[in-house]
Amino acid sequence: MRNWILPEYISDVLPSEARQIEALRRKVLDLFTCYGYEQVSPPLIEYVESLFTQDDSALDLKTFKLVDELTGRQMGLRADITPQVARIDAHILNRQGVARLCYAGSVVNARPEGVLSTREPRQIGAEIYGCAGVAADVEAIELMFESLALAGLKSPRLDIGHIGLFHALANEAGLMGHRRAEVFSALQQKDLPTIRETTAEIAAELRAALLLLPSFYGGSEVLIRARAELPKLPGVTAALDSLDQLTAALELRGLVVHFDLAELRSSYYHTGLVFAAYAHGFTNAVARGGRYDSVGEKFGRSRPATGFSMDLREFSSLPFPSLRSGVLAPAGDDVALLAAIRALRSAGEIVMIDLGVFASEVSIDRELKWVDARWQVLPLTTAH
Amino acid sequence: MRNWILPEYISDVLPSEARQIEALRRKVLDLFTCYGYEQVSPPLIEYVESLFTQDDSALDLKTFKLVDELTGRQMGLRADITPQVARIDAHILNRQGVARLCYAGSVVNARPEGVLSTREPRQIGAEIYGCAGVAADVEAIELMFESLALAGLKSPRLDIGHIGLFHALANEAGLMGHRRAEVFSALQQKDLPTIRETTAEIAAELRAALLLLPSFYGGSEVLIRARAELPKLPGVTAALDSLDQLTAALELRGLVVHFDLAELRSSYYHTGLVFAAYAHGFTNAVARGGRYDSVGEKFGRSRPATGFSMDLREFSSLPFPSLRSGVLAPAGDDVALLAAIRALRSAGEIVMIDLGVFASEVSIDRELKWVDARWQVLPLTTAH
Repeated sequence: MRNWILPEYISDVLPSEARQIEALRRKVLDLFTCYGYEQVSPPLIEYVESLFTQDDSALDLKTFKLVDELTGRQMGLRADITPQVARIDAHILNRQGVARLCYAGSVVNARPEGVLSTREPRQIGAEIYGCAGVAADVEAIELMFESLALAGLKSPRLDIGHIGLFHALANEAGLMGHRRAEVFSALQQKDLPTIRETTAEIAAELRAALLLLPSFYGGSEVLIRARAELPKLPGVTAALDSLDQLTAALELRGLVVHFDLAELRSSYYHTGLVFAAYAHGFTNAVARGGRYDSVGEKFGRSRPATGFSMDLREFSSLPFPSLRSGVLAPAGDDVALLAAIRALRSAGEIVMIDLGVFASEVSIDRELKWVDARWQVLPLTTAH
Repeated sequence: MRNWILPEYISDVLPSEARQIEALRRKVLDLFTCYGYEQVSPPLIEYVESLFTQDDSALDLKTFKLVDELTGRQMGLRADITPQVARIDAHILNRQGVARLCYAGSVVNARPEGVLSTREPRQIGAEIYGCAGVAADVEAIELMFESLALAGLKSPRLDIGHIGLFHALANEAGLMGHRRAEVFSALQQKDLPTIRETTAEIAAELRAALLLLPSFYGGSEVLIRARAELPKLPGVTAALDSLDQLTAALELRGLVVHFDLAELRSSYYHTGLVFAAYAHGFTNAVARGGRYDSVGEKFGRSRPATGFSMDLREFSSLPFPSLRSGVLAPAGDDVALLAAIRALRSAGEIVMIDLGVFASEVSIDRELKWVDARWQVLPLTTAH
């Protein structure tokens, strides 16, 4: 076995991609700052109990386990950051009122999400705690779109769903436990035969409604149809009301909304509104988010929460500005030379000391030369 | 067991520290860029074989192990980044000539280094591959000092040692295997009785030299004394010559050098020159580096290498600028309001939408108000 072979779905980030990721990371974090978000940076490892906000077998399966030799307890390498931020909101900050928190860091998945996925996404995201209103969701979606614009995606498609519709229907139908999970999973896959089969015993009207959900896919007419065709349960009405409000606010901000009311492919902790952005040339959603109102409950503080996240590595195929060119300077201990180099670097120039033939993506087009009794920056003439 | 308790020596980075770390990380990476370094970002996990550059029991003990479920092979959570960068230099880039690489990322230690240590240092560092000359070491030390200055440490103390002295003496004395390791360890601790005991059987002149090493501690007079008092072995002379050259170059750059020729408390892979910076109020070295010329050998490319690294969390006790103040804006869908908010944010202002009472370290001192038929930024009057 050769020593430099990396595990499957694990790769190095080499200079040009690293530069792109670093630039985007900064721009997105600066954007979050302009909206009043504060950065937190939870640890890579924790006891497994605190890495999940609830009994969450999907997240559990995704999480690498390791043993803490100081205590013998089982720890996990985080596969998600949101539960950690919820822990911070609930316990560590424990502030009154609305809290806006953001983060950027690696997460590690024990299993890849798909054949083209990495097991180490560089997750960046923003979250609002303590506000149940649609205004918070509007802000999260706005931030998501501005973040994608910074990545170079000018008009991604916004898909919105609401998990509350399924839950309202399933509750009314008395679908519980394993059966409920089966129907949920069939809906995720828009698998009508399985939905039909697993709902055979429930009331006809609710069964018909569950079978209709996958057809609520398209533009704003979907909300009108859903209101007309779904049973008028309080949960259904509340979900549709909030979708109406959200849509109006988003359209005012110039965003075109698509609906997918059977879109349940959210994270484990989502509770209501879910949204995702899709872009031409990308197989998977380029960013995802939604409501996870009970996320902090396990940490002793259940309050409203909404937010989004994306993977900074997702955008490596997009064009980005190349590095500015640099100046080559001779190695040496001449005081005037050292001062000239220092001055150039202070002015933001890349100055590379000549330590022999070099290999770099930095494009060197000038050199520092001793001409007319002073150090001058001249076009590069020596071959390097 | 409460769900929010973190493992020992593991902690969250909360907003003010996160802001400080983020700012320093950017400044140091920008500094590296100005010197012509290219960033790489190796993965958090790899097969254990590729995480160590040699049989390295100390690094092995520090490394958390986990199992790759895709292959059943043992992986490690990196406890150091330098071996990864060596792998990238040796195999992935495999460029001819001098390569300058830098990185910033978390490393995780299975055991804390000391009672005040974190098990997740945020390591940042820079490395030069392919240059054996002292000029590369000068650049690494210069970068280390400029990085520390960015962190707010204006005049840390520079300690320099050279592992070549020990190796030259030990080779000549025929000290091998376990016995050599014992002497090495005793020297690290400047434990004269143990050095005496473990060197009882070697030639008197070499034994005397090993016993002298811990006394070579101080200013530039140390090099003169060492040259006079140590045996004139080629390895000894070469080490002292390179220390002389280095010292001259550093003094020219305004750096005061201290020597500690028994300073062997380096990383596992160091081979020659080692250096460390110490500062008032800090128990441990605030940054460390040195030569690790054979580091890429395991990956099929043994070439000269030098560099340094430091932990961004180390500087949390130092003062840093507070966040700029922000503007509070009402939530709402008024088009003129949205435009006013957008304009302020584009101008770099923090604008926080009022979603109710909020909790934040962002200091809000102005608000956006509808006065005289337009949206204006006014001093904050409403209590928040």
